[in-house]
Order: sequence, then C-alpha cells, then structure tokens
Amino acid sequence: MGASIKDVALRAGVSVKTVSNVINDFQFVSDATRAKVRAALEELDYRPNLSARLLRGGRTGVVALAVPEISSPYFAELAAQFVQQAKGHGWTVLVDETQGAKDSEHVVLEGIKSHLIDGLIVSPLALTAKEIDQRRDHTPLVLLGERLAHAPVDHVSIDNVAGATTATAHLIALGRRRIAAIGSQPHISGGTAALRLRGYRAALRTAKIRYDASIVIPAKSYHRADGYAAMHALLDLPAPPDAVFCFNDLLAIGALRALHERGRQVPSEVAVIGFDGIEEGEFHTPTLSTIRPDKAEIARLALALLERRITDGPAASPREGFASFELLARQSTARS
Amino acid sequence: MGASIKDVALRAGVSVKTVSNVINDFQFVSDATRAKVRAALEELDYRPNLSARLLRGGRTGVVALAVPEISSPYFAELAAQFVQQAKGHGWTVLVDETQGAKDSEHVVLEGIKSHLIDGLIVSPLALTAKEIDQRRDHTPLVLLGERLAHAPVDHVSIDNVAGATTATAHLIALGRRRIAAIGSQPHISGGTAALRLRGYRAALRTAKIRYDASIVIPAKSYHRADGYAAMHALLDLPAPPDAVFCFNDLLAIGALRALHERGRQVPSEVAVIGFDGIEEGEFHTPTLSTIRPDKAEIARLALALLERRITDGPAASPREGFASFELLARQSTARS
Repeated sequence: MGASIKDVALRAGVSVKTVSNVINDFQFVSDATRAKVRAALEELDYRPNLSARLLRGGRTGVVALAVPEISSPYFAELAAQFVQQAKGHGWTVLVDETQGAKDSEHVVLEGIKSHLIDGLIVSPLALTAKEIDQRRDHTPLVLLGERLAHAPVDHVSIDNVAGATTATAHLIALGRRRIAAIGSQPHISGGTAALRLRGYRAALRTAKIRYDASIVIPAKSYHRADGYAAMHALLDLPAPPDAVFCFNDLLAIGALRALHERGRQVPSEVAVIGFDGIEEGEFHTPTLSTIRPDKAEIARLALALLERRITDGPAASPREGFASFELLARQSTARS
Repeated sequence: MGASIKDVALRAGVSVKTVSNVINDFQFVSDATRAKVRAALEELDYRPNLSARLLRGGRTGVVALAVPEISSPYFAELAAQFVQQAKGHGWTVLVDETQGAKDSEHVVLEGIKSHLIDGLIVSPLALTAKEIDQRRDHTPLVLLGERLAHAPVDHVSIDNVAGATTATAHLIALGRRRIAAIGSQPHISGGTAALRLRGYRAALRTAKIRYDASIVIPAKSYHRADGYAAMHALLDLPAPPDAVFCFNDLLAIGALRALHERGRQVPSEVAVIGFDGIEEGEFHTPTLSTIRPDKAEIARLALALLERRITDGPAASPREGFASFELLARQSTARS
C-alpha cells in the first residue's frame, strides 16, 4: 500500500500541515524540518498527490465527457471513441451522465468537478446558449451537437438537416410516397429533433410530397419502447405509411419490432431508416438502414478543440468543427 | 466567471501561496494578511476549491466506476444504474474504460486518479488477486464480478455457475440434446467464462448428456461479430447443434444473425439463449431469452460496500455482496 501524507508526518515526527508545506515548496519551513520530511517522503516512497499539483495550477490529465445517457448505445459508442482517442493527448476520459436534466447539466458547467479535470466536453440537451454563456466556471469546454450552435463556445456538430434530408430522400428514391417520421419534439425549439424534422420536410418538398402532420409522431425520449409505441400508432391509422424515417436507431429498432408483431413485411410493405449508425442495427433482423455520423471524427475534432482551448486560454474566439456522416443502406430499405 | 486563486492574490496584494495558506487555515499567516486575503476572497466570491479540501483529507463527492468496455450494452446499462443510485449517497459517478487491459487496470488501481475520487469500483478482466492485494493505493475499492473472488477486497458478484446452469437446463427442458456453447476462454483461468462453462457442464451432467468439446466455441471478445462467426462455424459442422447457450447477449445476437442468414428457424431448428439481459434482446427478432443479473442490485450493493469501506477504513475485513439473477424465457427458446 502507498504511504499517505499522515504516514509521512508520523515518520518525520511533524504535523500533516508541515508535510504539505514541504511538498508545496513553501519557504517558511526550516531547513532541518524540510530535510526530515524529505527523508520520510523518500523512505516511504510517497508520491506527491494531485492536490499539491492543483494548488500550483498543474494539469490533472483527466477530461470529463458529459452525455445525456450512458446506456444509450450512440453515446456509449461515442464515449468509447473519446476514451480511445484521448490517449493520444495524454488524457484519461471520465464519462458523466446528465440524463439531459437541466440541473445536472448546470452542475457540470458550474464546475462541481472543475478542479478535478483539465477540460470538459458536454453534449447538452436542456441548457440554453444564454446559460452556457453565463457559466461561472473557468474549465475549458467543448460542446457536442447543434443544440447550442449560437453559444459562444467551441463546439462540434454534424449537419443534422442534411442527414435527415438524405435519409428521407433515400426512402423517396425507393418509390415511397407516404413517409412517416418518428421522433419529433415539438416542445423543444432548435434541438436535434427540430433539425431532423426540417431535413425530412425539405426532402418531401423537393419531391413535391405534401407534408402530413398526422404521420409525424412525437417521441418524449429516444428509446426502443418509444419507437415501438409510435409505430403501433402509425399502423392504427386509416392510411398507414409505406416508409418511416426514425430520428434515431433505437426508435427504428422499436418500430421494426412493432412491424414484426403486426405481421408487416419490411421493407416491402414498410421501409424503415434510422439515424446514428449504432452497431445494433447491423445485427438486427432485418438489418437497419441508417445515417451514421462519424463518431471517431467527432471525438477527434472535440479533443483537438479542447487541447487548443487549454493552450490558447479563454480569450481566444470560439471555433467550430463539423463531422461527416454517411448513408448505410441495408435490408430495411432494400428494393423489394 | 468565478474568481481564481490568482485573482484573489492580485486583489489582496499577496502571493498565490499566501492565499492558499489562508484557505488551508495555516497558522503562520499574520492576522493583517489573513484579513486582507479573506476580504478579497469575499469580494471576488471565491469558492475554495477542492485542492484545499483534499489537503485536509476532505471528500470530493466523486466516485469512479472502471469497466472493461463502455460501449458494451451490459456495462453501459450497469453504469447507468450506478449513476442513478449514487445520487442517494451524494456521489457523482465518473465512468472510466480499461478495455480489460492489464496496464489500464493497473493505472486505475495504482491511483493515478485516486486523489480525485472518494472511491473506486472496478470490474476487472485482466488483474489477478495478487496484483490487487499488492496495490499501493489507499483509495477505497470495490470489485465487481467473480474474477477476483479471492482477493482481499470488498466485492459484489452474481452466481455465474448457477446462472449458466439455469440457462442450459432451460434448453434441456425444451427437449434439446445437442447443445452448443459460445464464449469459452480456455486461455483465462477462473474468469467469468470459466464459471459459465462450469455451469453449462453441470447442467449437461445432471441431464446425462455427454460433454462434446467440439461444440464449445471459444470467443476472444464478447461482441456480436464473435457470436456471428462462432455460429457460422457451428453450422458448418457435420452435426450442427439444436440449441446454443451464448455466454453473453451480444454473442447470442450475432448467433441469431448468422442463423437467419443460413435460413435456420429459431427456435424450432436451433434454440438460443444469452446472458446479461440487455434491453437490445427484448426488441430483437426473435426476442432473445437470457439470464438477467439484477443490475440495480449490483449497483446498490457495491455502493453500500464502498460507503462502509470509506467509513470503516482499510483495516475492516472485506465483505461480499451477491446479486440475484432471473431467467427470461422469450421467443428464441419458445416451445415450437
């Protein structure tokens, strides 16, 4: 077991405070005492701890990544990318979960943990640009996602509108005309859902397909069970859809389950596409078509922005990074 | 923006060290200087940071959970349980990923981050009991899983042998006799795979079914792709199995995908059961039968052990917690 500062104090016959004064190189310790403490530090192989480094403004080698939900495969896979790529920066990544709650996100930004970490990467759901702007904490910060594109901080995003347009246009290219959407969030303005809805509507407009609000189903959260319920609701309509664009893969997987239970063939009767490119979709039956943001690129860009922010300090103007995405056409949208 | 210790020093006209001496309540600061610094601290609304608390042995309110893979749904779902339940203890949980690598697990145990956290919960893959025993770090520690059941530390586990016996007996109860296993790890002794293999063999023995090593397929990692490859290998055998026990759900989902591609009916031709009870299995087609450890209970027990360890100190004898599990019989093992 490593020696504690108490062990060192005991060995040197001085107080814990005196040991910490020596560790901190404070000048008021007598040479004799300093020598005694140093000898005890060596004898016990004491490794000066971070608290001392922190008082001197040192780096901790730790960055925090705060995501709404650790158990969501998209965020879990994204977190894994951060963990792996942070090694190249000499950082350990600790992942925190906010559950998208405003108070948790506040706590993150107000720096409860800011003295433990060199920097913070946050994927916010609830916070506003104004709140981010007014944060009291100095910790270098990078935001993920487009929710707060106008906040004066570094951020990395993907083009959600273009991604959603691509997904919807893919369904149109299969000859589908009654294309539903699952995952709108009318109570949240400017978030990811609003951007994906905008992309969906843009693709319909281009194809001269009338927008029908009755087949745009809101989802409070983006879990499998939400997609499952929404798909059942769509199948209960007098004129069910022949295709569905789900705003994430979990919603799509729930929708596929509902279609299976109702005996509808995918893709011949109903084609389904998701968003996120989680690995689960690759192994689902049928395999799930999706828009896959480049998670490795998101992590790479965010870590690079964080590194530059730490180097350049808070005064440097905010920078933006954009990660790419790709369309993965699989069985759930195959030509029948 | 909050004031830094530097801002306070500037305002009070003293050195940063003097400010930290005042914050630390060191006695050698003159009353006049102390008053000046205190006034500056108040004026600038400086919130004494953790480094000061740490030097005095204070708690950080943060515990770390180190898992082999954040992107594995089992660990992601488990981590979410820890995050949610830790609130009851006043803790924020930060999740770290070791990738099961010995050096990463060492780093965790040797306390690189130990000064940032009140305690550490580790699900180790590579470390041995001896290595745990010899760790130099004082951070209160709780282990998850049975890998290191004989290490002299607090740990929480489930009965892997009983779980595997239950899974295999469930397949036998369906009338299956040629029951394969996917996920053995012959190069690792005493780990989870060895325990699940033992449970599988115990169930066969009870049913007087001969153990056939040719249908026990090793898996280097427990990903969907490993289960997919293993199932293809089993289907290439002259006498393929009529049932498969996969040592985790991801392996089972890969196996189901392979069965689908080879046109085999599940469960009528081949029944499949997994282990972990991840949500993905509930929405797969067919839905996946599994052994579900009580993840909420694992988190509850581990956090309680950690809290007691912090209170009782390192000398208290190690304690064990056992979490329950349940068999979820779904479509992949339905009676045909």
